[in-house]
Amino acid sequence: MRIIVTNCNTTREMTEEIVRGARAAAGPGTTVTGLTPAWGPESAEGWLDSYLSAAAVLDTLRSYDGPPYDAVVMAGFGEHGREGVRELVDVPVVDITEAAAHLACLLGRRYGVVTTLDRSRGQIEDSLETAGVGRNCAAVVATGLGVLDLDEAERTRAAFLTAAERAREAGAEVLVLGCAGMTGLQQEVSGKLGLPVVDGVGAAVRLAESLVALGLNTSRAGGYARPLPKRRTWGRPLS
Amino acid sequence: MRIIVTNCNTTREMTEEIVRGARAAAGPGTTVTGLTPAWGPESAEGWLDSYLSAAAVLDTLRSYDGPPYDAVVMAGFGEHGREGVRELVDVPVVDITEAAAHLACLLGRRYGVVTTLDRSRGQIEDSLETAGVGRNCAAVVATGLGVLDLDEAERTRAAFLTAAERAREAGAEVLVLGCAGMTGLQQEVSGKLGLPVVDGVGAAVRLAESLVALGLNTSRAGGYARPLPKRRTWGRPLS
Amino acid sequence: MRIIVTNCNTTREMTEEIVRGARAAAGPGTTVTGLTPAWGPESAEGWLDSYLSAAAVLDTLRSYDGPPYDAVVMAGFGEHGREGVRELVDVPVVDITEAAAHLACLLGRRYGVVTTLDRSRGQIEDSLETAGVGRNCAAVVATGLGVLDLDEAERTRAAFLTAAERAREAGAEVLVLGCAGMTGLQQEVSGKLGLPVVDGVGAAVRLAESLVALGLNTSRAGGYARPLPKRRTWGRPLS
Amino acid sequence: MRIIVTNCNTTREMTEEIVRGARAAAGPGTTVTGLTPAWGPESAEGWLDSYLSAAAVLDTLRSYDGPPYDAVVMAGFGEHGREGVRELVDVPVVDITEAAAHLACLLGRRYGVVTTLDRSRGQIEDSLETAGVGRNCAAVVATGLGVLDLDEAERTRAAFLTAAERAREAGAEVLVLGCAGMTGLQQEVSGKLGLPVVDGVGAAVRLAESLVALGLNTSRAGGYARPLPKRRTWGRPLS
Amino acid sequence: MRIIVTNCNTTREMTEEIVRGARAAAGPGTTVTGLTPAWGPESAEGWLDSYLSAAAVLDTLRSYDGPPYDAVVMAGFGEHGREGVRELVDVPVVDITEAAAHLACLLGRRYGVVTTLDRSRGQIEDSLETAGVGRNCAAVVATGLGVLDLDEAERTRAAFLTAAERAREAGAEVLVLGCAGMTGLQQEVSGKLGLPVVDGVGAAVRLAESLVALGLNTSRAGGYARPLPKRRTWGRPLS
Amino acid sequence: MRIIVTNCNTTREMTEEIVRGARAAAGPGTTVTGLTPAWGPESAEGWLDSYLSAAAVLDTLRSYDGPPYDAVVMAGFGEHGREGVRELVDVPVVDITEAAAHLACLLGRRYGVVTTLDRSRGQIEDSLETAGVGRNCAAVVATGLGVLDLDEAERTRAAFLTAAERAREAGAEVLVLGCAGMTGLQQEVSGKLGLPVVDGVGAAVRLAESLVALGLNTSRAGGYARPLPKRRTWGRPLS
Repeated sequence: MRIIVTNCNTTREMTEEIVRGARAAAGPGTTVTGLTPAWGPESAEGWLDSYLSAAAVLDTLRSYDGPPYDAVVMAGFGEHGREGVRELVDVPVVDITEAAAHLACLLGRRYGVVTTLDRSRGQIEDSLETAGVGRNCAAVVATGLGVLDLDEAERTRAAFLTAAERAREAGAEVLVLGCAGMTGLQQEVSGKLGLPVVDGVGAAVRLAESLVALGLNTSRAGGYARPLPKRRTWGRPLS
Repeated sequence: MRIIVTNCNTTREMTEEIVRGARAAAGPGTTVTGLTPAWGPESAEGWLDSYLSAAAVLDTLRSYDGPPYDAVVMAGFGEHGREGVRELVDVPVVDITEAAAHLACLLGRRYGVVTTLDRSRGQIEDSLETAGVGRNCAAVVATGLGVLDLDEAERTRAAFLTAAERAREAGAEVLVLGCAGMTGLQQEVSGKLGLPVVDGVGAAVRLAESLVALGLNTSRAGGYARPLPKRRTWGRPLS
Repeated sequence: MRIIVTNCNTTREMTEEIVRGARAAAGPGTTVTGLTPAWGPESAEGWLDSYLSAAAVLDTLRSYDGPPYDAVVMAGFGEHGREGVRELVDVPVVDITEAAAHLACLLGRRYGVVTTLDRSRGQIEDSLETAGVGRNCAAVVATGLGVLDLDEAERTRAAFLTAAERAREAGAEVLVLGCAGMTGLQQEVSGKLGLPVVDGVGAAVRLAESLVALGLNTSRAGGYARPLPKRRTWGRPLS
Repeated sequence: MRIIVTNCNTTREMTEEIVRGARAAAGPGTTVTGLTPAWGPESAEGWLDSYLSAAAVLDTLRSYDGPPYDAVVMAGFGEHGREGVRELVDVPVVDITEAAAHLACLLGRRYGVVTTLDRSRGQIEDSLETAGVGRNCAAVVATGLGVLDLDEAERTRAAFLTAAERAREAGAEVLVLGCAGMTGLQQEVSGKLGLPVVDGVGAAVRLAESLVALGLNTSRAGGYARPLPKRRTWGRPLS
Repeated sequence: MRIIVTNCNTTREMTEEIVRGARAAAGPGTTVTGLTPAWGPESAEGWLDSYLSAAAVLDTLRSYDGPPYDAVVMAGFGEHGREGVRELVDVPVVDITEAAAHLACLLGRRYGVVTTLDRSRGQIEDSLETAGVGRNCAAVVATGLGVLDLDEAERTRAAFLTAAERAREAGAEVLVLGCAGMTGLQQEVSGKLGLPVVDGVGAAVRLAESLVALGLNTSRAGGYARPLPKRRTWGRPLS
Repeated sequence: MRIIVTNCNTTREMTEEIVRGARAAAGPGTTVTGLTPAWGPESAEGWLDSYLSAAAVLDTLRSYDGPPYDAVVMAGFGEHGREGVRELVDVPVVDITEAAAHLACLLGRRYGVVTTLDRSRGQIEDSLETAGVGRNCAAVVATGLGVLDLDEAERTRAAFLTAAERAREAGAEVLVLGCAGMTGLQQEVSGKLGLPVVDGVGAAVRLAESLVALGLNTSRAGGYARPLPKRRTWGRPLS
């Protein structure tokens, strides 16, 4: 099966890293195709970026003309757009935020999220709440690192471990990597912390595969009906 | 003071209608300027439209170069974007969804929202919940009319009254017009129902004026810090 | 328009101070009339005082025979009575507790309340919860100062700032003055904290003006129907 | 032991009826003394009555000069005042609203309350919520009968049974008599409905006896500290 | 009346201690009979023990052939089984977990539980939540002592007092002994802490007596209908 | 990988049916081994059965001496025991109740559960709530059929469709088969209803495979630490 993984920002290196993480997690018969939006923010940090990203990702999928695919994984932790993509495409859609939380709930009574900047905490809390998995979230803790700072592995690791302790004190028995750019970090920090650490990218890939394998697809009744036909323009028209 | 009112869609007639409603509600010294996004959906009905609208409204405000303004009113009931606009501009921001709910809470123990299509109910519920005013919402009920169908006044009124009865049975003591396009309807249906009916446009204008008059502005601590400087593109680049 | 502002206690100096705050916040055409209950507690600190105050304020409004008025503002932070006043009078009623919270929700994701004594925290929490705006309250923190201690400005300011830091640590991005007697403090502490600070008296005056301007009034359906005619005595009969 | 039972209104016949119910429920060594407020409403129906009643009951207990007592039972279903009485007296205090709910929780997964007028539903919901026992309340249903109408036994019974069916449909497995004036009805309607029916007066008497027997008393830490010494006047002074 | 008190584990000394506590709390006409399961864990510490205990307690009551009884008290703090016992027996059933919480709610705005091991906190939280009394629980705090360590009185007392301070800092105004094995400790620690301390065994005995005295019994409608007749085997068959 | 699937009752035919469902859902490299408890109820219908089942399933896994396995799927919808199994075994554990809900949350805004008897609704609600996925559950609806009645396919299908309509009216956009014995029904009823229908057995198998593939295992910190070594007896000793 083919899974499309959408990056939430325009930084191709990050798409590549996410795709590497997704491929490492995917089952044998799965092909992973990464999509980088042609527009939007170079990194999504805050509400404005997140809404811009949501529109750009929708536009990217809307105008995609590659080979057919079986599911979409949205790789922006805490970013908006998943419900819109569910309306748009005819295959299952899994967002890495909710995916990580779903698996974390199976591994302990309370989970914690370690993310980048403090400003992102609110979006993540809202995203978990509306996805229906906020109840067992003990804390969303920030490392203070920006998305594009995460490429310095040593610093990221250290900041993650420090933040993870605060989540643990708040009751977390399981941790979640709170940014797609942290993909790959899970094993090392899990060993150091003695706690399971869930990477949303891997979680979402496996959940997407599961939905496809079980023949399950987004409900069209109510919330996620197909978009109505109408005039829409995607980005500022040429003057 | 000058209040910018942003329509959430590209239909200028609707902007004009909203501006009429806003002016009717505004205090003596207030100037209302309507903004219609140069891109986006012609009406916002569902999640995809809502995310597209959010980015377009942000872009509209970002590139606004008219006279300075004192507050922003966002006229899209249940539509996304308010937190991003709070990051972007240096003046108070009030969304008509939350505005209507805030005033409704002052008028009765439970309020109900009467909106357009069934598919919009989820967005409205989430919007009220994350705004912090979901607790006293008894029901969000749909009329079945699309946004652009609302110009047939008689049909709209009848559909509103029918839906309002369902909200009342669910416990609503106050009603809210659940679409910016319903602005102006409040007095007539209020009289027929014997219940107060809150129009979000008017409510938001008055709340925005109140914040300005009291010298209150969005907190920059935490959630709504200013957007970080970075590369962002707003819409598909020219090929 | 004329707004009646009711003090919750019998201390006339406090009524005068509240009226000053209300007038400073009111719009150009608004007349503010302060009412001091003829009976009740000299300050409201705790549940017993609050229930006594509620009855005294109701009696004060019931027997008011001055010029007609357009709205009532109830100036007792966390004190009881607002629902009873909504039954009693034929104009909109706004309590400063809920008013401050409504505006605070528009300014940040979470707000905190800084109040007088620790014993008042429970009443405030319950008052916010039943008003429907408790969700985004991060903390109610006490300064340890009694209501009648607030006239020593320097000490009050210092105690407020200390308590405000605890609210901020608990997640508050916006603060609320948790006592009518703190009115006037907001600008100074806001500057020092770098956070918006909402005064409930000003907030309630502006919300009351908004309701009147929009032609909105308390719903008579359900919870706030007019009091039934019956025998009632207001205070111990003469022996 | 001696238990004081306070009626919430000035109707002596109702006090007598409540005392009869309390005595029927009390254990062998318990003396029940009924107190009728010297002022207040002749029946408590709505928020205004409830706040007036709260002050009058507090005044009644404050000026009580009979023999010492071991506990207070407050017999006003959904009426205010319990927290103030907890501050005032040095013995345990049990309100019939919370008492009925506490016992009902032990008898089934969800309980329902059948009360008098529709307007009382909100007060009861708030009272259960703040007492900490709202979670398992499936519904509060009104019979449409006023408090003073309850003396027509046949009509009351019929109205109760009709309302009880609506509570059952909403999920109630246990019912609660939602007015002190319904005391005595429980056995008959329980038999007809095939469901346990809890009378708050009896429940409160037994809970008060339990607290006394176990040597438990209201906490003075935090919420229910003793009232501070200050000037208070209870009712309009003589002109 | 006769009350059966079931220990949740196979340690007879603990049953005896619980029975002592129950008798000390019971009213004059009450006979207390302790039952020790013939199988199960020697102490219940964690989920596996708790489920094993639930089945063993059910089997113990199922095969009980002593004199008739009027109520069952289940003495395992946070342990499972109460709903099953409600199905099984024809008399009221009170679990010490919920019992302590019900009485604690009457004594202060928030209560805290002090229990044995950290691993038990989750069970207790879930048990309070599903019993409908979780709202006012400020914290469940562990002493770090195992159930069978509680016989060293001095150490237990000291550990309790330390843990109690943490509960108080979290807002608890009332404390609950979070293990049946702590029965008897309440008076001493209450005096030291200056807070009411509720023992679940005593609370449950008094609540059970109250239900019996009031003629109240478990609802058979819905959740707690009698077990259906079918083949069941209770424990591994002989090979 | 090898997945152990535990039936919650002693009926071997049901184990076989569940294993068939599990195999149909499992990925290529997965071996499914069904375990039928040697003791317990022949079907689990209600709380008593559920607690008996929990102990029996724990005993079955405790004394299992077959080939090593990589994960456990617990096939009892709404039945107890999952947290105990998480303590007991060293591999991931997935309960079909939570599994179905996790996938259902990815397919629509609200899901509904269609189960067997009305008496099972409470257990399912509690199980979803404590698993952290109760928020988006719109309704748990009963068909009125017992577990062992489900072998009459035609009747089951009809009853399912009727109950499903009630769930849809309550807001469900996705349905869940609320009994392991319904496995296999999902495709047919999904087609008839035009809604996705999730089978918990298949969902749990795929989630278990996902956890194993991602190298994730139950957290040992806090709630699910290994059982302490102590004396335990599993079932009534021989006399």
